Amino acid sequence: MAESIWVLTDSDQGIHEAEFESPEPAKGDATYSIKRQTLRGGVREGVDTIEVDNGAVKFAVVPMRGMGLWKAWAGETEYGWRSAVKGPVHPQYVPVLDPNGLGWLEGFDELLCRCGLISNGAPDFDADGRLRYPLHGRIGNLPASRVEVTVNETSGELSVRGIVDEARFLFHQLRLETTYATKVGENRIRITDKVTNLSGTPAESQMLYHINFGPPVLDAGAKLVAPVNAIVPRDSRAAEGINGWENYPAPQAGFTEQVYFFDLAADSTGIVPVLLKNAHGTAGVCLRYRREQLPCFTLWKNTAAEADGYVTGLEPGTNYPNPRSFEGEQARFAKLAPGASVTFQLELELLTDAKGIGACEVEIGKLTRGLNPQIFSTPQKGWTKV
Amino acid sequence: MAESIWVLTDSDQGIHEAEFESPEPAKGDATYSIKRQTLRGGVREGVDTIEVDNGAVKFAVVPMRGMGLWKAWAGETEYGWRSAVKGPVHPQYVPVLDPNGLGWLEGFDELLCRCGLISNGAPDFDADGRLRYPLHGRIGNLPASRVEVTVNETSGELSVRGIVDEARFLFHQLRLETTYATKVGENRIRITDKVTNLSGTPAESQMLYHINFGPPVLDAGAKLVAPVNAIVPRDSRAAEGINGWENYPAPQAGFTEQVYFFDLAADSTGIVPVLLKNAHGTAGVCLRYRREQLPCFTLWKNTAAEADGYVTGLEPGTNYPNPRSFEGEQARFAKLAPGASVTFQLELELLTDAKGIGACEVEIGKLTRGLNPQIFSTPQKGWTKV
Amino acid sequence: MAESIWVLTDSDQGIHEAEFESPEPAKGDATYSIKRQTLRGGVREGVDTIEVDNGAVKFAVVPMRGMGLWKAWAGETEYGWRSAVKGPVHPQYVPVLDPNGLGWLEGFDELLCRCGLISNGAPDFDADGRLRYPLHGRIGNLPASRVEVTVNETSGELSVRGIVDEARFLFHQLRLETTYATKVGENRIRITDKVTNLSGTPAESQMLYHINFGPPVLDAGAKLVAPVNAIVPRDSRAAEGINGWENYPAPQAGFTEQVYFFDLAADSTGIVPVLLKNAHGTAGVCLRYRREQLPCFTLWKNTAAEADGYVTGLEPGTNYPNPRSFEGEQARFAKLAPGASVTFQLELELLTDAKGIGACEVEIGKLTRGLNPQIFSTPQKGWTKV
Repeated sequence: MAESIWVLTDSDQGIHEAEFESPEPAKGDATYSIKRQTLRGGVREGVDTIEVDNGAVKFAVVPMRGMGLWKAWAGETEYGWRSAVKGPVHPQYVPVLDPNGLGWLEGFDELLCRCGLISNGAPDFDADGRLRYPLHGRIGNLPASRVEVTVNETSGELSVRGIVDEARFLFHQLRLETTYATKVGENRIRITDKVTNLSGTPAESQMLYHINFGPPVLDAGAKLVAPVNAIVPRDSRAAEGINGWENYPAPQAGFTEQVYFFDLAADSTGIVPVLLKNAHGTAGVCLRYRREQLPCFTLWKNTAAEADGYVTGLEPGTNYPNPRSFEGEQARFAKLAPGASVTFQLELELLTDAKGIGACEVEIGKLTRGLNPQIFSTPQKGWTKV
Repeated sequence: MAESIWVLTDSDQGIHEAEFESPEPAKGDATYSIKRQTLRGGVREGVDTIEVDNGAVKFAVVPMRGMGLWKAWAGETEYGWRSAVKGPVHPQYVPVLDPNGLGWLEGFDELLCRCGLISNGAPDFDADGRLRYPLHGRIGNLPASRVEVTVNETSGELSVRGIVDEARFLFHQLRLETTYATKVGENRIRITDKVTNLSGTPAESQMLYHINFGPPVLDAGAKLVAPVNAIVPRDSRAAEGINGWENYPAPQAGFTEQVYFFDLAADSTGIVPVLLKNAHGTAGVCLRYRREQLPCFTLWKNTAAEADGYVTGLEPGTNYPNPRSFEGEQARFAKLAPGASVTFQLELELLTDAKGIGACEVEIGKLTRGLNPQIFSTPQKGWTKV
Repeated sequence: MAESIWVLTDSDQGIHEAEFESPEPAKGDATYSIKRQTLRGGVREGVDTIEVDNGAVKFAVVPMRGMGLWKAWAGETEYGWRSAVKGPVHPQYVPVLDPNGLGWLEGFDELLCRCGLISNGAPDFDADGRLRYPLHGRIGNLPASRVEVTVNETSGELSVRGIVDEARFLFHQLRLETTYATKVGENRIRITDKVTNLSGTPAESQMLYHINFGPPVLDAGAKLVAPVNAIVPRDSRAAEGINGWENYPAPQAGFTEQVYFFDLAADSTGIVPVLLKNAHGTAGVCLRYRREQLPCFTLWKNTAAEADGYVTGLEPGTNYPNPRSFEGEQARFAKLAPGASVTFQLELELLTDAKGIGACEVEIGKLTRGLNPQIFSTPQKGWTKV
């Protein structure tokens, strides 16, 4: 077997390689690589990234930010977005527990940011008005305690694996084990997450994948294509845009976000495909995930000025991003017995031409043919607090 | 004089030696050493430990966490515990001022953690419900500004000294000066703390030593032996276990902590000895401290699943760990005039055989002979809010 | 042109030079230099300072603390103060978002600390009692993302420039660009700040320069000289001292701060000069700024014990340091259209003899001659919440 493994971080063993570069490929014509580098200056100081390049697609993982996926590139096309926040931001500069629960927004600029593990969604407060669950939880601002990278010369598989613990003594102890994998030359990034309850008592866990795109995938005329069973606007603001929910306008300064909750259909293998494509079909992304693992899908439309982060979020989750207490009433979380795990699998296919986009549309089209989507024009009970 | 002093950290002078190792002992048969190392990866990244090895006993101090004592070893026996939190945790990852006041729990995994200097105990809130005093105070998550180590070749004394300031302009300015000392070949760690009010106005200070043990000292059948004048259960949960207060059960998933407040007796020299020993008397610890300095003793029994931290805490303090405002009403804190200091002295004797444990039991037995302990079966006024 | 520029930090380019020293001056008799060093140990660990020495005056800038000015020296005379907090403190140790809003005080020890950019002044809370605006805002605890230094051999101008962003996605995105400039041999430090709204939507920004002096400029008998149009005591405590507002007593343990709000007059060029001088006229400082840019002036008298920070603050601002919501009602902030900027210019002249102090007094005297100051003996509506 020609698999090589390098442990880049292991806090138990005291390992932390700030810089790393995989050896030159043995085959002369291959051009893949895995590199770690440590960023310098400002809020980035000391943040490391792991960049995987399979020759066709490149992506950067940020172990210190809960193994988030910062950006990706397919050839010249950049995937991700330009937030008002210039990250990746070291967690020490992100006041997640700001009493108003919104401090997470000071670190948010990733292509894919996990929201969890205990909770995600809007801030939730106790009866005394004190913060109980901050916006989108803690995992996105916790560092990996172990990071390893692998190269398999035979199969061409490249991967980055990381472990991040979210623990508070007396309260909870959840572990995220994540793998980003890709093969030499392909245009896909495959993500496998395992969340384990390390505690001796049962736990409840929420997970939401906040997967975000700005230009060039998002533009005026961009479109979302998905196998819709039902759509519900989160609030009256979202309800205003229900008729054009799948269409994106040009950037508009001062645009207030619109959020839609979905029930999406899976294909016969259990996979939900969702496509975002730009106006002229020159860039797009096909997201695939397993419906049984992530039954809820949320669409976030934030077509504000480019300077403020012209962006849309595709968000498969165990739940909708309502306050934790509301989602709890709806039983939207993963129940984990002591020692038990739940697995989430996702795939991002980066599309840069009409052919690839067309293939994904065909795939979704087959699935939508038999559907009779319910489009609710107002917020609905059980979906959102009404 | 054969005392050597090395200043490893001094922020005034810009000194900070990330790595250090004391020279080989001059005498060929001695095997002591003092080492500083810096941990790497995850929440440990950049945390340094100072390890003192006297040939019989080894212990690790964490300057960045208020000079806490992380773990100790006597031969093969490890002293300390396995928290749900895998530390030592860099203070930047411990949200002490989480609005609910419980963030301290995300950093808690030490054998000995100081709770203070302004306050300790349960979180306390103001009339508007805003956090006033977080759980167990700030000192455990503040870094030492000065650290020095000494080796005295003549006396065989090894020590680590540190200074940690807890200061908020316009509010308070307290300084902790601590010394951990041991002699070559002995099984004791001696701690001397001085807390000084550096302010020009009077101050009130609280100190509680949260001294924690898991396996192998704690096991099913482990026992606490102490010269009891009085015991009061903190609450109804503790009251449930008042009859077996001195006995420890096996780990039990979901066990809810039980906390007891004590008045303990001192010997003729003013010292209070307390013994924790395991079921078969193969491992134990004798804690000694001065009653006049630390009049209150709290016992924390948290015999939860091993994964969650099967642990008991022996906690001598200036006060009981009730909310600061309640303890204030009982005048349980140290009053410090401008420039004044208070000193606390403690000793941990690490016992690894029946002989040592027996000697400590005899010592306590002499003291208990004349006592007529009051065991209250319910919480009592003045001890806890009833 | 003989200007040399060195970029010491640029997070976009991954540049961060922890140590730097400008080359020896080409002219043999000049003695200027610019140095960066990184401090070590305790709460200073990893904090860098940039020290500019023009041969007559030296000053230290702290990029990581919002480009604050830590201390300055004119010959043997030190300018700044001795806070209860021993800084410069790394932002990771400053809990700005402490629910009570006062955590900023744990990092406060600079000669000049900017308070802003979104807000400054006393903490402000929402209707649920949750912190909305922490004391003196965020900018003083945010790191510079770009730092450059310049030396112009021809003009003798030395400068330090920095960029600090205060951004929260969905909320605001303000940028501070600051320049500290001085010329070889002069006794002045010139500060030019530009605050830009990088967002696509309008913003409101507040700025207050908290410029602080302890001994030897402040002593018993020290005096403030300013071109007063009006003075209003902030509260009843300040009202007690209204008659001697311009005089300073000796340090007094337990002294409670007194704060006065001013309307000051500008000269024909728009400049407001303010002088602080010690009892014997051996040390002083003349602060000059532009009235149209900074219409409000606040005087902070905190003549507590030296150990607690015997200090006075001269504080030109866009507003008075009342809670943000009150100042908002008075429209005291800068309105910034998308992309728009506001500029603030200040100068500190460090005076070390009677001649220099006298010249500044003459300058202010010319201005005060025609004034008829209103000295209010109680707080006034519109100035402070009454």
